[in-house]
Amino acid sequence: MARIVMKFGGTSVADLDRIRNVAARVKREVDAGNEVAVVVSAMAGTTNQLVKWCQELSLLHDAREYDTVVATGEQVTIGLLAIALQTIGVDARSWQGWQIPIRTDDAHGKARVEEIDGQVLIGRMAMGQVPVVAGFQGVGPDNRVTTLGRGGSDLSAVAIAAAVKADRCDIYTDVDGIYTTDPRIVPRARKLPAVAYEEMLELASVGAKVLQTRSVELAMKQRVRIQVLSSFEDKPGEPLPGSLVVDEDEIVEQPLVTGVAYSRDEAKVTLRRVPDKPGIAALVFGPLSAANVNVDMIVQNLGADGTTDMTFTVGKADLPRARDVLEKFRPEINFEAMVTDPEVAKISIVGIGMRSHAGVAATMFKALAEKGINIQVISTSEIKTSVLVGAEYTELAVRALHSAYGLDAEG
Amino acid sequence: MARIVMKFGGTSVADLDRIRNVAARVKREVDAGNEVAVVVSAMAGTTNQLVKWCQELSLLHDAREYDTVVATGEQVTIGLLAIALQTIGVDARSWQGWQIPIRTDDAHGKARVEEIDGQVLIGRMAMGQVPVVAGFQGVGPDNRVTTLGRGGSDLSAVAIAAAVKADRCDIYTDVDGIYTTDPRIVPRARKLPAVAYEEMLELASVGAKVLQTRSVELAMKQRVRIQVLSSFEDKPGEPLPGSLVVDEDEIVEQPLVTGVAYSRDEAKVTLRRVPDKPGIAALVFGPLSAANVNVDMIVQNLGADGTTDMTFTVGKADLPRARDVLEKFRPEINFEAMVTDPEVAKISIVGIGMRSHAGVAATMFKALAEKGINIQVISTSEIKTSVLVGAEYTELAVRALHSAYGLDAEG
Repeated sequence: MARIVMKFGGTSVADLDRIRNVAARVKREVDAGNEVAVVVSAMAGTTNQLVKWCQELSLLHDAREYDTVVATGEQVTIGLLAIALQTIGVDARSWQGWQIPIRTDDAHGKARVEEIDGQVLIGRMAMGQVPVVAGFQGVGPDNRVTTLGRGGSDLSAVAIAAAVKADRCDIYTDVDGIYTTDPRIVPRARKLPAVAYEEMLELASVGAKVLQTRSVELAMKQRVRIQVLSSFEDKPGEPLPGSLVVDEDEIVEQPLVTGVAYSRDEAKVTLRRVPDKPGIAALVFGPLSAANVNVDMIVQNLGADGTTDMTFTVGKADLPRARDVLEKFRPEINFEAMVTDPEVAKISIVGIGMRSHAGVAATMFKALAEKGINIQVISTSEIKTSVLVGAEYTELAVRALHSAYGLDAEG
Repeated sequence: MARIVMKFGGTSVADLDRIRNVAARVKREVDAGNEVAVVVSAMAGTTNQLVKWCQELSLLHDAREYDTVVATGEQVTIGLLAIALQTIGVDARSWQGWQIPIRTDDAHGKARVEEIDGQVLIGRMAMGQVPVVAGFQGVGPDNRVTTLGRGGSDLSAVAIAAAVKADRCDIYTDVDGIYTTDPRIVPRARKLPAVAYEEMLELASVGAKVLQTRSVELAMKQRVRIQVLSSFEDKPGEPLPGSLVVDEDEIVEQPLVTGVAYSRDEAKVTLRRVPDKPGIAALVFGPLSAANVNVDMIVQNLGADGTTDMTFTVGKADLPRARDVLEKFRPEINFEAMVTDPEVAKISIVGIGMRSHAGVAATMFKALAEKGINIQVISTSEIKTSVLVGAEYTELAVRALHSAYGLDAEG
């Protein structure tokens, strides 16, 4: 017997038939002798409609009223799923955020979960009842409904799993697990049986958007074991195992490189012939930070004449703002020219095995060189090495690295 | 300065444009120096969709989950209206039933309001803020969302008006007031400046469905002054006065007959040659009551041979059930034949003036006789006289009575 939190996203509960399917799947876990709580999102499309109404009334709408409106989507789903479960003989009841309560701060629209007392839910589960909890929502210090931001239902599920001390948090989604890379680019990509929290964070932040980043951070902090699996491919009697996201100690076989990720969301900025003097980096990056422009990769090439070329990347959407800020501060920074290029891609290899093994990156550089791919910028962290290449090389680079690190499936 | 509760139904908030219109109307009351609270229904069509989903999942759905689902409609409207009000400079905030709280019993789907502490709302209104309250919903003793039944938003508005000691509860609807009769039948029907609670109850229960009956009962009990007015015909600067529903003491000029109502929702049942003995009425009406069949008008004609003909009316929808029950108890009741007729209409004259004046009904019988309309059953109460006639005479009878009591508008 295990205690499991099952989370279903919007496409999994998009209509009554799918809600019935979800109910059937929950019943299988209950029939197998498990204690189960369920967390659900709004029916697909609902939240977008509600957000649109708020925006049409006012682009500067009150975030507290926005939360009141958009939180209704999940409220509908929990009632319908509870009915669907009862209809097939499973004792179930719905829980809104304020009823548990899921206490959050008052940052409406992107609230942070502060406290969940799991005792009531644990008691219900022990009685054989399935709590059906509204994802994405909580209640703020002033007793108003809050929402946790987009993808917040993953966060709700992990937080509930921590509160009820669940053995596992199963996140049902439209992919059946976490792959070594994007299968649309590499058909021989393999589903990973398990990845470490840290790896998942790096994979998510560079484009493998299976789980909301904050939910992985919370899972890591609270040591909640996550399983990612498909809500569509499973058939009664033959559940497909998904991918576990767990503490690295649980992962027996740690490959050097777990996966290859990519992102086309960045743009490159180069400032030519900046005076090479102390404090110049602060002069460049201070104003960008003040303007809420996130800077990612940074490289600096020293010239012989006391100047330097500074290259860095920013989010593609932030590029116009970054240009404006830098032009405004041009007199202080004193660069000779600014060159920007949105046609770049960031390719990353990720793996906790890199911590203890040197020379992992050398394989990367060699593999890219063999394909004639020029590396524009390099950045590294403890478990990740990223390179910036021309956008047109994205697929070629991903495939080359996937093969070079022995990640291709056999056959 | 007055303290006013304004209530808007589903068609008045059916889309964003209408919500903006409602906001503008609220602003006019605020700008006139009044303290205002607003009660709103779900956007037209929303509740029906939510109800349909519950029914499709199970006809025997858990009423607590049903309430969780259908209460979301009002929650969307309060958030959107609060945003619309803020956008035009009116300080506003939304209130769900559990936040005030509006405490009800646990009769989910048709809960009864038990207690509303108006102090918080009164405090907000005194600060110049407009509370926007979700109609139709409350919170039960076990902290679960309850709904008050169809038309429950009227009830919410009256209950809130009582709790905040409002000077008036303005119910905006798709008609502009209460008429002496249905204007579709009598074009010269007049809008009544004021009707007494008791009259409104009789008018509502016989077909003038402007206000939910329970809300009028509550208004009468709590002495809440209601105004019924149109949400569509009003133009800035020239508000159309609606009809007041108030204590009869407030009505200066009390006509003998205030209005003529009709209902086509009843069917006639006659049991022929029933033994005329004590307890026979209990034998007939006991089983009907046990089967939840409401009996309305009753008349008994004594025969010379120790038998009697019993005639009564039941709701048209209940007729098949009534027939089944009576056939089942035929041996005990011992009637010779049962004759039923759904092609009947109940025509009623209503007026508190009837209390103190005899002979009012005589005018009715004479007017109908002059038109050759046969009266099948008569029933009277303190402020109402009803007759049952053939359904094909409905319009003719209503017009004849409207003229006979001098209710036709001049011109």
